[in-house]
Amino acid sequence: VRRLAIALVHHPVLDRDGAIVTSAVTNLDVHDIARSARTYGASDYFVVHPIEAQRGLVERIVTHWREGSSAARIPDRKEALSVLSTVPSLEAAIERLGGRGAVELWATSARSRPDSLGYADASARLAEDGPAVLLVLGTSWGLAPEVVAACDRVLAPVGCEARGDGFNHLSVRAACAIMLDRLTSRR
Amino acid sequence: VRRLAIALVHHPVLDRDGAIVTSAVTNLDVHDIARSARTYGASDYFVVHPIEAQRGLVERIVTHWREGSSAARIPDRKEALSVLSTVPSLEAAIERLGGRGAVELWATSARSRPDSLGYADASARLAEDGPAVLLVLGTSWGLAPEVVAACDRVLAPVGCEARGDGFNHLSVRAACAIMLDRLTSRR
Repeated sequence: VRRLAIALVHHPVLDRDGAIVTSAVTNLDVHDIARSARTYGASDYFVVHPIEAQRGLVERIVTHWREGSSAARIPDRKEALSVLSTVPSLEAAIERLGGRGAVELWATSARSRPDSLGYADASARLAEDGPAVLLVLGTSWGLAPEVVAACDRVLAPVGCEARGDGFNHLSVRAACAIMLDRLTSRR
Repeated sequence: VRRLAIALVHHPVLDRDGAIVTSAVTNLDVHDIARSARTYGASDYFVVHPIEAQRGLVERIVTHWREGSSAARIPDRKEALSVLSTVPSLEAAIERLGGRGAVELWATSARSRPDSLGYADASARLAEDGPAVLLVLGTSWGLAPEVVAACDRVLAPVGCEARGDGFNHLSVRAACAIMLDRLTSRR
């Protein structure tokens, strides 16, 4: 079984007009994705933000739940947040996993592509031996094309194939939970 | 294909000590569950709260996204929130679906039970003809036993079977997204 990690990218991401922007941290992205990551056995959840004050905000939230009054009140949350760390860039997350040669990057996208990696294939690959897999998720309107291009594979979108009308407006928190559930179904 | 609806219950639910409480509305429960519901083809998302001021808060959030400045800014959110309505009780949600004879209630729980309904079985049942299915989700530490007892079936938990260590601390938003993905996989 390969090591599975998650990166939530706040820059470079797209806004609704397709411009490259930096998004703000969302409190429940911190909690929900850490909870899903720990439940499904991901080793790491990297919150990627280039702005130090935004990383500091995340660390303050995490410290409250790891060491503050809430750590005693809800020990499961402390445990979930133990997988979270902040990094200034995707490169820093890759370094933390042992460098580019030790990690395969799987981008995620709400758009279908001809060469998308499907979940049956992806979960079988995860169950084999091999380098760590870093699941790269974008905030706002999704990862900038340059980030997707730098990844090894792009996972198929979740949600939209289930219905005919093509409506797909899952939150990144929901999409991440569904992906983890599908990817680890063979474990 | 049967009609599928979701109820998010704020009372009666359990607190961490097992006492019956009424939980407060969480803003991102409003957004995330509506987005997942609409994406996966659920017809209705009922936010169940006995306190009028809390229902009013939800309606104010929804109105901002349906009619306010954000409706034009993010039309997909307006569309997602079109499935949401507030009701004072689970009984009121059942009435909205045509009454007790027209709806089957499936409780959800993070605990496994001997008679839990598995997802292969549940998605096959949903694909047949039959009464509407109302998926009943609890906030806080989960549905009160009296609510579970009043339901026709209890769905198997998601998350924890994927790993050996039994840690399961998914948010209700994440659990709902995973359940919808699993339940509609045959559609």
